[in-house]
Amino acid sequence: MKWSKYFSPTIKEIPADAQVASHQLMLRAGLIAQECAGIYYWLPQGLKVLRNIMRIVQEEQDKAGFNEILIPTLQPTDLWQESNRYDGYGKEMLRIKDRHDRELIYGPTAEEAVTDIFRRYVKSYKDLPMVLYQIQWKFRDEIRPRFGVMRGREFLMKDGYSFDISEEAARETYRKVMKTYIAIFQRIGLQAMPVRADTGPIGGDLSHEFLIVAETGESTIYYDKAFDDLKLDGSDDDLDKLMAIYSATDELHDAESCSIPIEQLRYKKGIEIGHIFYFGDKYSKTMNAKVMDESGKLSAVYSGSYGIGVSRMVAAIIEASHDEHGIVWPESVAPFQFGLLNLKIAHEQTTKLCEDIYACFQKENKTILYDDRKEGAGAKFSDMDLIGLPWQIIVGPKNAEENKVELKNRKTGERAVISVEGLYERFLQG
Amino acid sequence: MKWSKYFSPTIKEIPADAQVASHQLMLRAGLIAQECAGIYYWLPQGLKVLRNIMRIVQEEQDKAGFNEILIPTLQPTDLWQESNRYDGYGKEMLRIKDRHDRELIYGPTAEEAVTDIFRRYVKSYKDLPMVLYQIQWKFRDEIRPRFGVMRGREFLMKDGYSFDISEEAARETYRKVMKTYIAIFQRIGLQAMPVRADTGPIGGDLSHEFLIVAETGESTIYYDKAFDDLKLDGSDDDLDKLMAIYSATDELHDAESCSIPIEQLRYKKGIEIGHIFYFGDKYSKTMNAKVMDESGKLSAVYSGSYGIGVSRMVAAIIEASHDEHGIVWPESVAPFQFGLLNLKIAHEQTTKLCEDIYACFQKENKTILYDDRKEGAGAKFSDMDLIGLPWQIIVGPKNAEENKVELKNRKTGERAVISVEGLYERFLQG
Repeated sequence: MKWSKYFSPTIKEIPADAQVASHQLMLRAGLIAQECAGIYYWLPQGLKVLRNIMRIVQEEQDKAGFNEILIPTLQPTDLWQESNRYDGYGKEMLRIKDRHDRELIYGPTAEEAVTDIFRRYVKSYKDLPMVLYQIQWKFRDEIRPRFGVMRGREFLMKDGYSFDISEEAARETYRKVMKTYIAIFQRIGLQAMPVRADTGPIGGDLSHEFLIVAETGESTIYYDKAFDDLKLDGSDDDLDKLMAIYSATDELHDAESCSIPIEQLRYKKGIEIGHIFYFGDKYSKTMNAKVMDESGKLSAVYSGSYGIGVSRMVAAIIEASHDEHGIVWPESVAPFQFGLLNLKIAHEQTTKLCEDIYACFQKENKTILYDDRKEGAGAKFSDMDLIGLPWQIIVGPKNAEENKVELKNRKTGERAVISVEGLYERFLQG
Repeated sequence: MKWSKYFSPTIKEIPADAQVASHQLMLRAGLIAQECAGIYYWLPQGLKVLRNIMRIVQEEQDKAGFNEILIPTLQPTDLWQESNRYDGYGKEMLRIKDRHDRELIYGPTAEEAVTDIFRRYVKSYKDLPMVLYQIQWKFRDEIRPRFGVMRGREFLMKDGYSFDISEEAARETYRKVMKTYIAIFQRIGLQAMPVRADTGPIGGDLSHEFLIVAETGESTIYYDKAFDDLKLDGSDDDLDKLMAIYSATDELHDAESCSIPIEQLRYKKGIEIGHIFYFGDKYSKTMNAKVMDESGKLSAVYSGSYGIGVSRMVAAIIEASHDEHGIVWPESVAPFQFGLLNLKIAHEQTTKLCEDIYACFQKENKTILYDDRKEGAGAKFSDMDLIGLPWQIIVGPKNAEENKVELKNRKTGERAVISVEGLYERFLQG
């Protein structure tokens, strides 16, 4: 992509109404723009990051055999009456009347709708276990939306729902989902901790939050120091240890009743990025989602629900990975892997070399943003640092004349002047 | 994908409330299920088709240098007040009040929002032409939603918006968009005709509808028979001819004032699948979207908007491509390219051969649905015809013992018994 043709506006000034680093950087790097309170436009670079996260989430869910569906953003209220959540959900749920005065809600979650699908089609234990998931926009009418997409009103969420014939099988599925979550966060390249959590209004007796460790996080995680020695590789051994070790979100942690001695206790700041629940037959009973069991008897299914905040994750990643110059994208989700800086458009050899590099990288389907704008070198350096692409290929007249470029790693800051052949050897096949 | 683990429910009976073939087949093949009036759940196979169409649309829009963004589903009403469309839009626009009694609308289109983005960032003619597009869920509160996703209320649309410095440049962009549309429909493999259309409430003086030719279409297309000799390849010559030849939607066509003699006139039935408009400075003037022109003067930009009905296209493709047994997917959008039928699970060689074929196709990333369910051969034949995958690989005991399979082309109905080696040679690399 050539920047001159790309809609990727950057802003120098720190926006006055943005308090946290991720919100400031998302506005300044041109990832989002505010539409109105708690609702954001996604500009091209932001949308690319969102899609990259979506793809990783989908691939790991699909690999585990979960089935992707899509629930409309609007849902009829009768499903919510049936589950007895209509009155309880309060003002966070956006309630709408259509032209015929029929009430709809903008889904804040989809336990009801997915249970509705399940009960229409699934009649036998033989079809279980089943996990249905979706990635869809949700709306929660936060009383004070803040921190950009971190606590917005319209947000993108992956929500999954499991159906099992027994509590035991359902707990097994719960563990399976945990493994996919661990795999997702590992692929993104961020430290995410699964921590025991309160079940809240969804109910049930087993719940974990996943938090991205970040000093600027809103939540505090309390945990046994043994946790620090765990390598979270998603193996069963690993998961057994994880389930046995003390951990708690701040809502759940109580210093007095904490089961481990204080000298074993550690805490960290984090940003909630996922939340999973086992709630048994809570919805299947009220909504009559039953299947035939092995003995031929109708039995209410055992369920859990599993969320990942996809749009929120864009902000959380930035909170965990930025410096004073801007965003530092992990390669897994970066909008482009490479930024190519032409420091002097008017210099023939420089521009010729840039065009060559751009063509070679494109040919091998490497994602590359070529800064071919008529800006000075200073503006290009600071914009490129701001948008945080993993690798910068810097081409100026002096190096270009010797067929050399400067390669900079955004994360480490390391720079090296290398030959163009060296560049191709390092990153390209052909 | 193994069907036994895949959520892909089929229905034998023709659903009573579905009048048109596409609606019936989408329900029966398990692509969608109704949530409430005009709103549909997307089940796994339906979602795959939707995504395939999205991908083709995105690739062709990106290739043309258009920039993808995402506008939230909900929009603040003040933008619509500003453009003077708030009162005029009527009851099709879903109006919502949030917890603070601020009014929002569920976007039926996004001229206002995209113009809002444009005017914040783009200040100079040097950044033009610019086309911003998105693929996002929209809502139109149809008084009588019908025909499934063909005329639903919550629907997925590609909507693009162009910004140019002059009328001449804007008309050039309009042509460029037409070319991308022709390319999109060609890739999907369907005959789509661009036809002169009424500009309607969006305004302006230049508009085309794109219609998929289908006998069951709701619209009638009137055109000069010279149209039938045009090869729509998206070249400039081609486009010049197209623009010169008489064509009109039924709203626009008037027998008395028609500019060509009746013996030259032809008509066909079609389904509207895209609509493009040039409307000049209509919104840029009222919404103050101005840029500096070459002489340093502020000038309102010239715009057009360009829609493709993505969810509607799933239904339109089925209308244009089905038979008495079910759907006949074009390869470009099929949920899987191959269906593998195991006619006798209990027969060891049959199942072994199926597993081998499945593994080989998966290894080369061919999309294949393996019907490993414990159903009889008859049910498998009719289900596979119903869901309409382009190629069926049928494995029964007799052929399996000779290391042979039957290959069936869903569209032509041609069948041939071939060796497994022949199968691999035909479809696989290695």
